[in-house]
Amino acid sequence: MTRARGADRRASIVRAAFEVIAERGYRGTSLAAVADRVGLTQQGLMHYFPTKEDLLTAVLETRDEWDLLHFGHAESSMTVNQLADLVDYNATRPGIVQTYTVLSADSVTEDHPARGYFHDRYERVRAGMTQMLERHRDELPPGTTPEQLAPIAIAVLDGLQLQWLLDRSEVDMSAGFRTFLTLLGIKPD
Amino acid sequence: MTRARGADRRASIVRAAFEVIAERGYRGTSLAAVADRVGLTQQGLMHYFPTKEDLLTAVLETRDEWDLLHFGHAESSMTVNQLADLVDYNATRPGIVQTYTVLSADSVTEDHPARGYFHDRYERVRAGMTQMLERHRDELPPGTTPEQLAPIAIAVLDGLQLQWLLDRSEVDMSAGFRTFLTLLGIKPD
Repeated sequence: MTRARGADRRASIVRAAFEVIAERGYRGTSLAAVADRVGLTQQGLMHYFPTKEDLLTAVLETRDEWDLLHFGHAESSMTVNQLADLVDYNATRPGIVQTYTVLSADSVTEDHPARGYFHDRYERVRAGMTQMLERHRDELPPGTTPEQLAPIAIAVLDGLQLQWLLDRSEVDMSAGFRTFLTLLGIKPD
Repeated sequence: MTRARGADRRASIVRAAFEVIAERGYRGTSLAAVADRVGLTQQGLMHYFPTKEDLLTAVLETRDEWDLLHFGHAESSMTVNQLADLVDYNATRPGIVQTYTVLSADSVTEDHPARGYFHDRYERVRAGMTQMLERHRDELPPGTTPEQLAPIAIAVLDGLQLQWLLDRSEVDMSAGFRTFLTLLGIKPD
């Protein structure tokens, strides 16, 4: 198989995984179910993604690429309004949010296959968030800096997702994130 | 076995689990390792805790009871300073924080055995946080309410734990939480 065909096949598997996650959630998504969807044997799929964690990490990487295309061309150039829109959009795809929440938390354990991915992703996202807040430096509360606030803003996003997944009738991620922006002195459109 | 002896045995198993978690982290904590520590066969331990999730949920429940004894007699009466102290204390026990992070996130999946526990815990913790913030109502930024801010404050605590577990040299939970309090207009001691 040529390298290009291999990349196409990987992309089809990841697309199938998105569909299965959307329909069945994190726990219902098995390598067997995704293989079935894409017309491969489980053995054939495991040639591309040896474990469920490998496949789901590829799903999250692909989500990051799509989100950046739709909501900002690079993490460092995303605006606060684009980020608020992204939170609204996440509220329409609980399966993906669930996958992110479970996999990012599992990655904190020793030798987890996705640990490197999440370590680097958070480093990158904190840098992007710092640059976003830098453009609002004059609005931020006195004595606070973009560097200080970036990990807190990311914590708010992650933590609200967790509470929302456990009780969607009680917790509103979009409203919560907008309230947090007002604490920073930033008014989204 | 009498009911009292059964409760003693459960308590010893939970204590042993704390030790194993502290030494080996979430992934290194197996039912077999805990059984070994407490001098039971794995089969004997499974009489009390049929799965790893059941045992770890009991560990987290016990942690909640201890923390309330040390840092406040009830979630609703804990002060902001006691909560900031609790964050400092958590920085000394990464194994337990890791267990909380992994298990709470896993619980968002369908039919997870700890889903009910975490759903109810977050409901209770949001109510307690609302009451804590109620006592600072005059300091809160104009237009915000304790009810609105409670899930955000809890999100900050959870989200900072995740980032800290992934990169302890980069993320400081204690400083982050204190910065968040200043956003609320609250000055901890």
